[in-house]
Amino acid sequence: MKDIDILVSEVGPRDGLQSIAAILPTEIKNAWVRAQADAGFREIEVGSFVPPSILPQMADTAEVVAAALTLTNLNVAVLVPNLRGAEGAIASGAHKISIPFSVSETHSLKNVRRNHQQMFDEVTRIAELVAAQESPPHFEAGLSTAFGCTIEGAVSEDLVVRSAEKLMRCGVAEVGLSDTTGYANPQQVRRLLRKVQSAIGAENITGVHLHNTRGLGLANALAAIEEGITTIDSSLGGIGGCPFAPGASGNIVTEDLVFMLEAMGLNTGIDIDKLLDVRNILRTALPDEPLYGFTPDAGLPKGFRKGEKRND
Amino acid sequence: MKDIDILVSEVGPRDGLQSIAAILPTEIKNAWVRAQADAGFREIEVGSFVPPSILPQMADTAEVVAAALTLTNLNVAVLVPNLRGAEGAIASGAHKISIPFSVSETHSLKNVRRNHQQMFDEVTRIAELVAAQESPPHFEAGLSTAFGCTIEGAVSEDLVVRSAEKLMRCGVAEVGLSDTTGYANPQQVRRLLRKVQSAIGAENITGVHLHNTRGLGLANALAAIEEGITTIDSSLGGIGGCPFAPGASGNIVTEDLVFMLEAMGLNTGIDIDKLLDVRNILRTALPDEPLYGFTPDAGLPKGFRKGEKRND
Repeated sequence: MKDIDILVSEVGPRDGLQSIAAILPTEIKNAWVRAQADAGFREIEVGSFVPPSILPQMADTAEVVAAALTLTNLNVAVLVPNLRGAEGAIASGAHKISIPFSVSETHSLKNVRRNHQQMFDEVTRIAELVAAQESPPHFEAGLSTAFGCTIEGAVSEDLVVRSAEKLMRCGVAEVGLSDTTGYANPQQVRRLLRKVQSAIGAENITGVHLHNTRGLGLANALAAIEEGITTIDSSLGGIGGCPFAPGASGNIVTEDLVFMLEAMGLNTGIDIDKLLDVRNILRTALPDEPLYGFTPDAGLPKGFRKGEKRND
Repeated sequence: MKDIDILVSEVGPRDGLQSIAAILPTEIKNAWVRAQADAGFREIEVGSFVPPSILPQMADTAEVVAAALTLTNLNVAVLVPNLRGAEGAIASGAHKISIPFSVSETHSLKNVRRNHQQMFDEVTRIAELVAAQESPPHFEAGLSTAFGCTIEGAVSEDLVVRSAEKLMRCGVAEVGLSDTTGYANPQQVRRLLRKVQSAIGAENITGVHLHNTRGLGLANALAAIEEGITTIDSSLGGIGGCPFAPGASGNIVTEDLVFMLEAMGLNTGIDIDKLLDVRNILRTALPDEPLYGFTPDAGLPKGFRKGEKRND
């Protein structure tokens, strides 16, 4: 990924679709992933290995991974809640496996019915399984509710740091920070990133996952980038949220994020015109679902050239 | 204003209402301004002195100013397009008068039917009139289309700087930068602010006026604040735009801006709960108008304390 400045990691097919009641047919998911890869995306989280009884929207994840693996230049990512999910993910051949670790233990119990110690044990078992593979996938832990929890309220920043340290010791390759609840503000993003970077090394935290629940998503992304973060999760049309964190809806909008980055002269490798076309797939497939974002309606500025570094 | 960190200048009654076809009755405008002042706002742009034939929505500006002047601790601001408007503004007793100067000459001709030299002459005449007053109002020029123009496309940054210098020489007390068209990105905001600050002195540029046309409004506000800007214009519910710059709609949303600032530990002097109540006035008065912003729907984070500087 040396040829791009920022990796925009599309999580719509996972985080977006898991929060929508409608079940998107596999062929539409595949078409979406294909179109977005064709627009220049290098990483897409295509689904999660959770029991279909809990999230029937994700039941076809192995098939979606298989289709995505046929695309060139695409890092195929999936989410797993536990060891069983990781086994499915490894069997599918996904390149990247993420496990959410809720820093709010209350949220952890609600979300995956495990306390912190149980989660550390599970992460260790997955890390061992991953390490035993001939071509091990990249295994990452996302520190969810890192900026606050809809149940607990404020989340201790020391606990975030200690959780990050512990997860590294459990054997993950990297941790990320997730604003699951849309509580983060730019000052907090800067402060918490610096704390975690200083504790585990900046090379071990390269990504953030932000929501736009209170409209601060892109401001938080800006703060993260300016602190050295190089991977930003986002969701086409801003769909998504967490079904177990009430009121916490809406990932940051891929279209507006990519516009912001390219306008700032940061190369994402993404063709914005093609990206705006991908939105039509969602609009057609999910006609009743609100799609967020302003750039699709406003269009690109007159004379806009992507990745332009102006110095007049 | 020494007791607050950032002055959020509400421009909804002017920039918002001028772009809406419906004419809000004077008593509703007065109730809106009163409620927002009561929520802690220190500055509100309550209207503009333009011919009623052009903007009938602003015909009662003198009355709205008169009512606003009865409120304590409120800086009453108005916009004027020309000398005649400034005469009206001065007669009304407004504390602050802003004139837009379009750096895009094409936009200037469309918006106020004057080229740059005619605008400089007009600004000079207004500055002389202002200086001749016993209690002169604060007279400011806003550099509109500073970040790009929907007609011309890119706008020369050198021209922005030279216009700022020239306007200061014409006798304005201060200049501001306006992203009339929603073209700005955070990198550009930083770069252009630094250029103008370096040319005319940071003390002569303390405010920015941003639109959320492509969703980057708060990210741009963050960049501006981090460059030392202390006054941010915004509009309740994000209403507003420029009727002469097609597709350039939506000021940054006051509710989300205030939430961001207070969450960052920056004191605005504003009571967010009261602010969220003010929105109901607009919703009732303009039932067909879309209101923007996420914080009003999401509510404040659990346990949120305004102006909190966390250091756990």
